[in-house]
Amino acid sequence: MTGTWLYFLLFFSAASVASSSFINSKPRFLGRFAHLKAETTQTVKSYRYETRYYTQLLDHFSFKNLSSFEQRYLISREHWKGPDHMGPIFFYCGNEGDIEWFAENTGFVWEIAPRFGAMVVFPEHRYYGKSMPFGSKDAAYESADSLSYLTAEQALADFAALLTDLKRNLSAEDCPVVLFGGSYGGMLAAWMRLKYPHIAIGALSSSAPILQFENIVPEQSFYDIVSSDFRRESLSCFETIKESWHALEVEGQRENGLKYLSSKFHLCRNLNNTEELSDWLSSAYSYLAMVDYPYPSAFLMPLPANPIKEVCQKIDSLPSGANILDRIFAGASIYYNYTGDVSCFDLSDDPHGMSGWDWQACTEMVMPLSSSRDHSIFPPYDFNYASHEKGCFEQFGVKPRPKWITTEFGGHDLRTALRAFGSNIIFSNGLLDPWSGGGVLENVSETIVALVTELGAHHIDLRASTDEDPDWLTEQRQEEIKLIEVWVNDYYKEKRSYFGI
Amino acid sequence: MTGTWLYFLLFFSAASVASSSFINSKPRFLGRFAHLKAETTQTVKSYRYETRYYTQLLDHFSFKNLSSFEQRYLISREHWKGPDHMGPIFFYCGNEGDIEWFAENTGFVWEIAPRFGAMVVFPEHRYYGKSMPFGSKDAAYESADSLSYLTAEQALADFAALLTDLKRNLSAEDCPVVLFGGSYGGMLAAWMRLKYPHIAIGALSSSAPILQFENIVPEQSFYDIVSSDFRRESLSCFETIKESWHALEVEGQRENGLKYLSSKFHLCRNLNNTEELSDWLSSAYSYLAMVDYPYPSAFLMPLPANPIKEVCQKIDSLPSGANILDRIFAGASIYYNYTGDVSCFDLSDDPHGMSGWDWQACTEMVMPLSSSRDHSIFPPYDFNYASHEKGCFEQFGVKPRPKWITTEFGGHDLRTALRAFGSNIIFSNGLLDPWSGGGVLENVSETIVALVTELGAHHIDLRASTDEDPDWLTEQRQEEIKLIEVWVNDYYKEKRSYFGI
Repeated sequence: MTGTWLYFLLFFSAASVASSSFINSKPRFLGRFAHLKAETTQTVKSYRYETRYYTQLLDHFSFKNLSSFEQRYLISREHWKGPDHMGPIFFYCGNEGDIEWFAENTGFVWEIAPRFGAMVVFPEHRYYGKSMPFGSKDAAYESADSLSYLTAEQALADFAALLTDLKRNLSAEDCPVVLFGGSYGGMLAAWMRLKYPHIAIGALSSSAPILQFENIVPEQSFYDIVSSDFRRESLSCFETIKESWHALEVEGQRENGLKYLSSKFHLCRNLNNTEELSDWLSSAYSYLAMVDYPYPSAFLMPLPANPIKEVCQKIDSLPSGANILDRIFAGASIYYNYTGDVSCFDLSDDPHGMSGWDWQACTEMVMPLSSSRDHSIFPPYDFNYASHEKGCFEQFGVKPRPKWITTEFGGHDLRTALRAFGSNIIFSNGLLDPWSGGGVLENVSETIVALVTELGAHHIDLRASTDEDPDWLTEQRQEEIKLIEVWVNDYYKEKRSYFGI
Repeated sequence: MTGTWLYFLLFFSAASVASSSFINSKPRFLGRFAHLKAETTQTVKSYRYETRYYTQLLDHFSFKNLSSFEQRYLISREHWKGPDHMGPIFFYCGNEGDIEWFAENTGFVWEIAPRFGAMVVFPEHRYYGKSMPFGSKDAAYESADSLSYLTAEQALADFAALLTDLKRNLSAEDCPVVLFGGSYGGMLAAWMRLKYPHIAIGALSSSAPILQFENIVPEQSFYDIVSSDFRRESLSCFETIKESWHALEVEGQRENGLKYLSSKFHLCRNLNNTEELSDWLSSAYSYLAMVDYPYPSAFLMPLPANPIKEVCQKIDSLPSGANILDRIFAGASIYYNYTGDVSCFDLSDDPHGMSGWDWQACTEMVMPLSSSRDHSIFPPYDFNYASHEKGCFEQFGVKPRPKWITTEFGGHDLRTALRAFGSNIIFSNGLLDPWSGGGVLENVSETIVALVTELGAHHIDLRASTDEDPDWLTEQRQEEIKLIEVWVNDYYKEKRSYFGI
């Protein structure tokens, strides 16, 4: 496998049988699908908000670059109790994509806002969606120089500046802010609570692998969890996929093998090598594990309930003696073509040749992932930092700082560091989610707590409720609401005692 | 008064009778005296340490400027228990001056290190002493561009990077770090504990006016405290000084008045205007308030015990009917010429025309100070942000961000923000210290505590013990030691329970 390279929440290149160059493993472009989703789902849920822009400094931490950019944020005051009642501000820490898409897929925040009389704010992360420095995506992504302000620290400072200004403008200085975030956004929410406690009183950090750095957790956990998600549905399915990489490789090496594979997998163009196909397939398996929700969803792709079960049923359903590649194609079609609308599959990369998460993974967000020899559904692969660094230099002309995130935010021995420091963070994780391997799965203290669900996938708790929600999910959300209520009420109590009320 | 402009710990221009231009109130240069002190006092105390350099990134928060510089730090492992015993690391957050000078004047840390088996580290703040980006002070201070990385956030990140690397190199990852700092260094220590809890277990933040921003505390507190320090010694002394500004002004406006004043005050060159002299005098009064220690000291200048008492006795001792300017000169001579070695006084400015704290006050560290009409020994003055901004632009071509510090570090309603967040910070303040007006004077929580001494001056607790220490000072230091012991022992307990020992 070469795909140590990944799009955090979304698209990443995963296993491929043979090693290939770094460039070959360049992942697909996030924005393409994110954009589609925002357009297609907005009409369905239609949360009501205003879209606004806030002028941000490009560089909060030096006085050299004084240019600014417009950060988009979505805001709804529909249910806000207002400053006189210290109505809370629910603030979603935008992550690596179009903020409208995250707003649409974070129904939990919208649903609980009325109960709290809360304002809802969804700020977009710099360099994503419409929040582009230098006036356009092309200009923002032009070079390492233009990309150099795309960091988590700058994004957190954006949130801090926006919130401070927003509160001042709404005379809402005394209104408590509660942070929400999923995946990378969940990391930002937790870090924001730790770094800006004067700005937010607590954070719901969902499916946030803040420990997936350096050697804090085993590098194999991500792919091991994907693998076990398949194994638990069907051992034969697991084995079919595990064997398929070799079959693909053998087929690809035959005369006209690549053409044959291209045709068998209904690709729009002929393959240049087998890795293109295995990357495409392994991405599907990893994403399936992330969105293995118990009801139909359309977060990454339109999918049925329990999609891994569906994929495995399809793979297993072919008659005994069927070609292994036919099984694999049938399974992959569940992920890539559940609606049946796709006539051929396009493996093409990001047309711009760059993406924001690529840059982040090549600078701060160095999260080593390996595939184990024994437990993985994917071919074995050991993360190699030297080749990661080399690839980053080739792609961006930048050298990663793999130890910077833990220097800036911690991670090693989190428990000792935070046991008597900090408060009001919920780390929620579902164990089906491959990112849970890098999550905080045990309580740190009385107020920094872990909510772990055995059957949860990637930040399922942040999604809108459905009629098909299992009890454990309803209970998890109730627990989260209860904890947020405690934060808010403790804050009110503190404020009132201070005012002598 | 025009001197809203100040050198934090040390030299700042203070009151002058008439308003003058921003440039006229440019303060004296820190390095000149700091350098002297380091050379003259080192031989006296002679704490033993090695001097080392660590390669720091110039910009921790973007990936644009990849250049680095050598940060000086002093280190002593003489009493360190070592990694096997988790020997603590005592880390002084270097502030705006030569680190050797701070090391010499922070005897407390050296004195308690053996008791804790602690390593002692004194890192220098970037852009001060020998820790110059771009290879030299001239290059580092050349322009706003070259100065743009002189910020508190970058300095804290320097400390974090240095500590992380140091611990790794010494296999000391499990060794607890305790932060110390006085004045601006005390602010850095407190902020470091809040922002990097995974790196340091606690902070002794001495005389740190972290609330002296925006409108958190009254702008008048600094000069009111200076004033009351004089009033408490002698009402007639207070009144003499209060009246002297007008007398100076009148004298200066006479024919040959400036020449007369220059001669009367034994200046090495003739005055260009009266403000030069009143700035020089008001600086003396403010610094006297800061270093009003109960024993002889030589922190800023060689001074007797209780120097304000001495100054006032001198002022009051002249026979009734003596010229008010003779009284003032006699008083000022205690501050500027206690040794009697000075033949004439040099009012000249920083030869480089810039200094680090000037820049910091023109970017982040906007600490508004005003002089009240009724209680002040100085002429009335209202801080005017517009003229501060104008002056900064004229001097550096930079626009301050007066609200950034509270956005990044908090300050408004500190109590609510930190009551259930953070731990292990001692805010120590002496009420004679004019900076105590911007300090944390009440406990925030059980573990974020305020130690206030009625008769303490600027970070006296951090100084070496002397035979003349009053009981309250000895008790204060005992209390600090006790609290630090609790932090360290709690940490050991936590670590051992984690290891299952």
